[in-house]
Amino acid sequence: MPIITLTTDFGLTGPYVAELKAVLLAAVPGAQLIDVSHLVPPQSIRHAEVLLRSTAFIFPPGAVHLVVVDPGVGSARRPIAVAARGAFFVGPDNGVLGVALAAPGSRAVVLDRPELFRAPLSPTFHGRDLFAPVAAELAAGLPLDQVGSPIDDPRPSQLPAPRLAATAAEGETLIADDFGNLLTNLPAAAIDPGWRFTVAGESARFVRTYADGAAGELLVLAGSDGYLEVAMRDGSAAARLQATAGLALRCTAE
Amino acid sequence: MPIITLTTDFGLTGPYVAELKAVLLAAVPGAQLIDVSHLVPPQSIRHAEVLLRSTAFIFPPGAVHLVVVDPGVGSARRPIAVAARGAFFVGPDNGVLGVALAAPGSRAVVLDRPELFRAPLSPTFHGRDLFAPVAAELAAGLPLDQVGSPIDDPRPSQLPAPRLAATAAEGETLIADDFGNLLTNLPAAAIDPGWRFTVAGESARFVRTYADGAAGELLVLAGSDGYLEVAMRDGSAAARLQATAGLALRCTAE
Amino acid sequence: MPIITLTTDFGLTGPYVAELKAVLLAAVPGAQLIDVSHLVPPQSIRHAEVLLRSTAFIFPPGAVHLVVVDPGVGSARRPIAVAARGAFFVGPDNGVLGVALAAPGSRAVVLDRPELFRAPLSPTFHGRDLFAPVAAELAAGLPLDQVGSPIDDPRPSQLPAPRLAATAAEGETLIADDFGNLLTNLPAAAIDPGWRFTVAGESARFVRTYADGAAGELLVLAGSDGYLEVAMRDGSAAARLQATAGLALRCTAE
Repeated sequence: MPIITLTTDFGLTGPYVAELKAVLLAAVPGAQLIDVSHLVPPQSIRHAEVLLRSTAFIFPPGAVHLVVVDPGVGSARRPIAVAARGAFFVGPDNGVLGVALAAPGSRAVVLDRPELFRAPLSPTFHGRDLFAPVAAELAAGLPLDQVGSPIDDPRPSQLPAPRLAATAAEGETLIADDFGNLLTNLPAAAIDPGWRFTVAGESARFVRTYADGAAGELLVLAGSDGYLEVAMRDGSAAARLQATAGLALRCTAE
Repeated sequence: MPIITLTTDFGLTGPYVAELKAVLLAAVPGAQLIDVSHLVPPQSIRHAEVLLRSTAFIFPPGAVHLVVVDPGVGSARRPIAVAARGAFFVGPDNGVLGVALAAPGSRAVVLDRPELFRAPLSPTFHGRDLFAPVAAELAAGLPLDQVGSPIDDPRPSQLPAPRLAATAAEGETLIADDFGNLLTNLPAAAIDPGWRFTVAGESARFVRTYADGAAGELLVLAGSDGYLEVAMRDGSAAARLQATAGLALRCTAE
Repeated sequence: MPIITLTTDFGLTGPYVAELKAVLLAAVPGAQLIDVSHLVPPQSIRHAEVLLRSTAFIFPPGAVHLVVVDPGVGSARRPIAVAARGAFFVGPDNGVLGVALAAPGSRAVVLDRPELFRAPLSPTFHGRDLFAPVAAELAAGLPLDQVGSPIDDPRPSQLPAPRLAATAAEGETLIADDFGNLLTNLPAAAIDPGWRFTVAGESARFVRTYADGAAGELLVLAGSDGYLEVAMRDGSAAARLQATAGLALRCTAE
């Protein structure tokens, strides 16, 4: 039973998510449809990238990830599909699939086969009329090279890169999760738990898990996706720091 | 594998949606359950109607649409089911199924077979105890005329009708989607893109897609569901106009 | 097709729910995954308990309920599983599974078989790495006694108990649902509809269903889950009373 995940900024009050699913089910009856999130902030490519960072490669082989965060819908931005590490990804060429593109051996195609699209193609809803039909074809087993033509210049991840050195590392917060934990771009493997940590200039303590923190204390820990996160025990680091993205996380050996 | 969609105003923090699904799965193991939305504003028949306008007829044949927006639960309002264009619809007779009723050849029945209901029938949760069991029966293949008795006076759509003429048309905004786009009751086929457009008295420009607009500009475009919508590029028309429903959209040939 | 329900406080903007589902689907392909709610207020064991009260025993036999509201993740709190009335429950031993534990004949085990867990075990995400894998095993048919060792001291429900007498009863509000109805801990079977009712000292009228109330009137009714609830017709009792939990509901024979 093919798995298709959905990540969009469509929200949950409109008909759009259900429209995607109708197209998917019409083409792949019985497909297992998994919502990653439809509450990506409107047009936030960054947020969708962070979601994909945690979910891209944990589903069974052959899973198709449909990612529609598409501020340029109807413009000249290319629609693409990517194959990487046994999974498939379909979405706009705006960086949102950067995590897949960065995987070793990834391949990308531009979706240039209108015969695969839903007709007439709505200029405002490529999610339903273009991306979903192609995702369904991939889920049904059509090879990547039959949904488009190879490209070698897809737009890479738009996430900021961390700065890594032997005795120091600097990253930044990317988004907040629903608990107010701030997810960063700093790989946990790049730092030593014995180092000193500051977040937005404020001292923070490295702990193993939330329960190891004291009330009100700013914490740094290795998040479940392999990146450092900034957190508070029984509280919201985002609320405490009054920000989500762009806060500097500095780690130094002394 | 039968498809059952769910549209309710139950929200996402309570147990009610899961209770519907438990009833559906008990009767139709393996049914494909698709959430349209559970964030219909409380008791907003209008909002549910707009969702149904986009989703009623795009699922594979035999799909059952369970729509529970039911301010009159427990009162004398009738529970009904409708068959239209190969799909089935189950919900209260308060206009929420108006889109289905308006389809050519639609048939409606009043749900008057208590033996199909869950017992005891809760006076406050017909969604779980009455509508879901009937939706399950239809999904499992029971014909419409075996879940109730024919009626010829179901309550039609409560959406306002647009005014259409050869060289002018007037409609109104109905709801906002999660991007702040305002969906209207004016069919795109009734207007000419070269006409002039005003929204709530303010001039607006007809464009093909969001990306064709300038920042801050009020836009009119043919939405993906065949109706005009009012939008802004990279912004919320609802926020700009400080309203959602009832704004006049006027279109004239000169 | 095994059914696994999910109840968490993970929210809907992060990757965590999808990560649970990836683990579940990898272990039980084709499992029917049902979201109860992911909008449990952060760390609100009480809220999750109320959801479970309505949903624990209404799914087909063999359903597995994965409940991850886990303020103590990574600390010494025990992970447990419970079998009760033909259903299975997996979650932390913090009272959140109290409804299952209270069922006649329930059995509990501590999850002490690391070979069943995902490795390496993240100290911050036992939902994904410990509870979901065990839930999947139970859904796939592994007996309860093979996922852990029996315990006889699991933490019971943390919900307050009502005070019941022959001619009076007193309970309290627990949570609000999305309509603003206040769900209480008072079984409807313990009172007589002819009694007098007060909520937070204010008089309220017992009605059969919402539509029986007058506008603005404070209502008490037998909710669909067998407990009394406090409501208003076409309005929010929570907004009217400016509170959700802890309001006294008093019922007396005269």
